[in-house]
Amino acid sequence: MFHSACVVGAGRVGKAVSARLAEGITTRTTGRELDCGDADLVLVCVPDQAITEVAQAVPPGPWIAHTSGACSLDTLDPHERRFSLHPLQTFSLELGPEQLDGAWAAVTGESSPALEAGRALAGLLRLRPFDLDDEERAIYHAAAAFASSFLVTLHEVAAELMEAASAPPEALEPLMRRTIDNGFDHTGPLVRGDWETVERHLRVIAARRPQLLPLYKALTDAEAALLAAR
Amino acid sequence: MFHSACVVGAGRVGKAVSARLAEGITTRTTGRELDCGDADLVLVCVPDQAITEVAQAVPPGPWIAHTSGACSLDTLDPHERRFSLHPLQTFSLELGPEQLDGAWAAVTGESSPALEAGRALAGLLRLRPFDLDDEERAIYHAAAAFASSFLVTLHEVAAELMEAASAPPEALEPLMRRTIDNGFDHTGPLVRGDWETVERHLRVIAARRPQLLPLYKALTDAEAALLAAR
Repeated sequence: MFHSACVVGAGRVGKAVSARLAEGITTRTTGRELDCGDADLVLVCVPDQAITEVAQAVPPGPWIAHTSGACSLDTLDPHERRFSLHPLQTFSLELGPEQLDGAWAAVTGESSPALEAGRALAGLLRLRPFDLDDEERAIYHAAAAFASSFLVTLHEVAAELMEAASAPPEALEPLMRRTIDNGFDHTGPLVRGDWETVERHLRVIAARRPQLLPLYKALTDAEAALLAAR
Repeated sequence: MFHSACVVGAGRVGKAVSARLAEGITTRTTGRELDCGDADLVLVCVPDQAITEVAQAVPPGPWIAHTSGACSLDTLDPHERRFSLHPLQTFSLELGPEQLDGAWAAVTGESSPALEAGRALAGLLRLRPFDLDDEERAIYHAAAAFASSFLVTLHEVAAELMEAASAPPEALEPLMRRTIDNGFDHTGPLVRGDWETVERHLRVIAARRPQLLPLYKALTDAEAALLAAR
């Protein structure tokens, strides 16, 4: 479907996406100067707040898409041949297009041709596409925050408690990886109904890291609700 | 140091530990009948609440140890040649001793010989040992809960939000793995100071999954405090 693409932005997403596209089709990368030639896809990989301005500056004609998880399609106004493809992945500037391997991508479009264009782009990027309604973007993006941003939060909190115990924080990583490998099987005191251990955690957190008490309680409540719903 | 071991219990930890020990030394597994022969180490791998009873029934003489993360050493009373080794890992009954590979272990002992015995056991199990004070056990165990039990909670919550968005929950796993691969780099709206996105998450969670609001807020507060402390 696409024979040439112009990637606007060379940040973490833009760099990986552009390198992968270049493996299959004619690809150029541009900055705010929007030197896109006659590319039949303009892929806007700039920070969320800059999408609207970039989209307005792109001459109508080619397909235009953004890679934001949070922004709705109307940030691409006034274009009509438009869609969004959000790779559900976290990217590093130090790595290449292999970062896209195995990842999924949310494709949002307002028409069948737009959805087909999004899926075609996912194919070029070797991402696994799924459809996402524009109105479901906020709750989808919140899901991604729980899975990625808050995973980092959880690790940092656990590392802080390890340090408080004079234990090595790096010992947590094999545990976290195996928890994923084992299919996110519920483990720990709650699944065993071991409220004594939960009470002991509450007491020691109250004594040593009281600022973490609301988080421990909120996680315990959420886990208890999940277990009760099974 | 140890030439023979008797593993009490064939649960998830007991089974993996016993299989690994059998690769190096004479190992037998026993249940509550405590058929331990003249093993020079009795390793108690039973549920926390059962440790005291098992320890009291073991005739004095050999080294005795438990593999609990939560229980203190006095659950091994009246034994004096005692220690604890807690593999900081989550185990599955379907897997073997390879589950110990790459994992760390908390070793607790009240004397140099006890700590040496614990480290010797870690060596036989091919675990990376670190010392843990008996009094630091509660905060250490809380760290493990954040890293493992609550990682499962986080994934389930994210999966629930994905389902609410009619998006595939299985798309979360590559994101979570990469978040670990990338060294738990802080990502997401907070690190960018993007409070507009945080507000949008709060609104959609309030509207669609209000029961998750305290958890979202607690995680946001914890993440904001971590970022502020950097």
